[in-house]
Amino acid sequence: MSEMRASAVRPKALFRSTVGDPGPVYPIDRWILSLFLKGIGNPAIRSVLWDGSDISHPGAGRVGMVIRNRATLLRLMANPLLNFGDDYSAGNIEIEGGVVNFLEAVYRGMMRPGRTCRRSRPVAHWLQRNVNSLSDSRRNIHHHYDIGNDFYRLWLDKEMLYTCAYYPAPDATLEEAQIAKMELVCRKLRLKEGDRVIEAGCGWGGLARYMAKHYGVKVRAFNISREQIAYARKRADAESITGVEFIEDDYRNITGECDAFVSVGMLEHVGPSHYRKLGEVINRTLSDTGLGLIHSIGQNVPESMSGWMEKRIFPGSYPPTLKEMAAIFEPYSFSILDVENLRLHYARTCEEWLERFESHRQQVEELFDDAFLRAWRLYLCGAIANFRAGNLQLFQVVFSRFDNNGIPWTRRGDDRGREPL
Amino acid sequence: MSEMRASAVRPKALFRSTVGDPGPVYPIDRWILSLFLKGIGNPAIRSVLWDGSDISHPGAGRVGMVIRNRATLLRLMANPLLNFGDDYSAGNIEIEGGVVNFLEAVYRGMMRPGRTCRRSRPVAHWLQRNVNSLSDSRRNIHHHYDIGNDFYRLWLDKEMLYTCAYYPAPDATLEEAQIAKMELVCRKLRLKEGDRVIEAGCGWGGLARYMAKHYGVKVRAFNISREQIAYARKRADAESITGVEFIEDDYRNITGECDAFVSVGMLEHVGPSHYRKLGEVINRTLSDTGLGLIHSIGQNVPESMSGWMEKRIFPGSYPPTLKEMAAIFEPYSFSILDVENLRLHYARTCEEWLERFESHRQQVEELFDDAFLRAWRLYLCGAIANFRAGNLQLFQVVFSRFDNNGIPWTRRGDDRGREPL
Repeated sequence: MSEMRASAVRPKALFRSTVGDPGPVYPIDRWILSLFLKGIGNPAIRSVLWDGSDISHPGAGRVGMVIRNRATLLRLMANPLLNFGDDYSAGNIEIEGGVVNFLEAVYRGMMRPGRTCRRSRPVAHWLQRNVNSLSDSRRNIHHHYDIGNDFYRLWLDKEMLYTCAYYPAPDATLEEAQIAKMELVCRKLRLKEGDRVIEAGCGWGGLARYMAKHYGVKVRAFNISREQIAYARKRADAESITGVEFIEDDYRNITGECDAFVSVGMLEHVGPSHYRKLGEVINRTLSDTGLGLIHSIGQNVPESMSGWMEKRIFPGSYPPTLKEMAAIFEPYSFSILDVENLRLHYARTCEEWLERFESHRQQVEELFDDAFLRAWRLYLCGAIANFRAGNLQLFQVVFSRFDNNGIPWTRRGDDRGREPL
Repeated sequence: MSEMRASAVRPKALFRSTVGDPGPVYPIDRWILSLFLKGIGNPAIRSVLWDGSDISHPGAGRVGMVIRNRATLLRLMANPLLNFGDDYSAGNIEIEGGVVNFLEAVYRGMMRPGRTCRRSRPVAHWLQRNVNSLSDSRRNIHHHYDIGNDFYRLWLDKEMLYTCAYYPAPDATLEEAQIAKMELVCRKLRLKEGDRVIEAGCGWGGLARYMAKHYGVKVRAFNISREQIAYARKRADAESITGVEFIEDDYRNITGECDAFVSVGMLEHVGPSHYRKLGEVINRTLSDTGLGLIHSIGQNVPESMSGWMEKRIFPGSYPPTLKEMAAIFEPYSFSILDVENLRLHYARTCEEWLERFESHRQQVEELFDDAFLRAWRLYLCGAIANFRAGNLQLFQVVFSRFDNNGIPWTRRGDDRGREPL
């Protein structure tokens, strides 16, 4: 694990704003704070300034933030969606009452009916216009996924699945829930022995291995993350899993035919301007009787990611609405057969990731540093809060060609004696 | 049953084009026929002219049409989507090899990749722009649904459900499948005793009665069809079902609060320009923890209904894409939780309707006349062909408020010991 890699995720301008005494709080500071709070919808939080004085929403309870100096307050005012993350990471902001609770309160404030603080749609689309060319995508994916398999191993499940799990019951473990997710995907695709499967964006190869091992299918799994592909190949070899070919290439270069096209957690990185291209790839690869499944974070209303998430964590990413996803399906007249929203399952998944992450904080600090640890914590807590507050969704969409009359008759069936999920 | 009512559905310009000898076929007639066939994508059918000569697609088999005279050929050429239906109804066109097979072949020809014969999207939307005001809706609904309960009783199931059934297995009967459909809807809505339900567009009241009787909920069921409401009230009284209030009013006038908002087979009559209004109605009535379900015929790609269907059978109707349905949900940030596409179930439902309809053709002719019988047969056959060819879909969409964390954890559960569906 090199510091160079870690620096990819670490904010460039990360610094503690002041050393030593931040000085007194003036009336103008309180006025700026109140303006800032109004701008984000007066969330139910307590906001404490560096001298201990505060502005508290009546419903705040213990949930709040401490702003450690004036420079931070000004940065918050200037660009809250970018600078909150950077200043929290740098330690210029401290959160009380739990980071998730705090963020959930903030998100709920921003989403209250009648609020207009949401990032605007035209901006969301404009930002997405020219991103994720072939070379952009390589850089963006490298930024997040190539910071080290050792790091992800600390807090992901044994199969290294970095996507929403499926909890048959809320008290299932993460390991159980990730296996159940893979099983759910396989069943929705009605996989049968010998099927040719194309997986677009295979992560560390967990689903590809599962499909080959438990369903006897032949998988061609694509990914542009070098470290993930290397890991996936090694692990498949170690487990003597044949029937999976891991290919380091972009989804746009996929060729060949398949009986099932599956993509779990890639669409977030594709960008709406490339959905039609993704549809074209599916259209040229899916057999006449094939089924497809796309699993992606989504939204009810189109909004861009927060500046901080987009800049520091997931460059080039965008969670689409179902309406936006139509750009994949409509040009080729694909039939949407089934949509399931697993929002609360993703909140649960991220809770378990956070718990494991926090329990390994010492190792994380050894690999990176305190600012990285704080940034990653904020990212995981933000995800939990977003899924809990209903700001983000998780859509699993099953589709086929419009004239495929071999589609499943009902949702039941093809469990082949397996436990119901 | 009055002839006046029947005439509402019967084409105004319905006439046999010629009496007696239609005269010889000239080369120009064959040229016009070939142009017409090219225009609709050269479907795999046999086209026979009035002298017995034909133009046959190599894949036609026994499926074809006989055009009985030149006037019919010219009308087909001028406006196939309107005049085919009128001329078939009038007996100027005969179909060989089965009406469903014939229409399916035609639809598949029109939908072949690369074909541009589909009705265009701007036209589809423009046509829908100014229809279905409050008074339009009354007239349009009266046109189709008030032609007589006695007529519908001849070929619908015992509960008089005029929407897609749900066949737990393909060999279930229509009666079983309609009950299973109501059960499926109730389970998706997770109804529990005492829930307040609003049903928008309740038809003859079958679902409202079922919900009240089997789930102990309180239903307020809305419909603007006078005959349907009268029937629904009478039948609920006869069966001593309390807990249902049938209200003769437009969905736009619905007020009050509900734990479940359900609409089965109404959205087709709403029109995209009113989807936002429907969303507003749901937004003002659905409780914070309520679930909604919309069941509607849909499409993969936006296209207007054929002229004949729109003019003669279902004025003001339009089957939306999922993308278009977003206009209901997005302005209020509703979360789509679940979508199921029951296309093949609707083909099966229409097959059973057609079978029952044909077995009562004598009674239908007594109530109406031969042209009506042929028009209605064409409509039912067209529906079967459209659902089989993948031209029409049937979407069941479950949704809730975005911040409702009491949504069902998985699709399982709440079966309360009932048979799985």
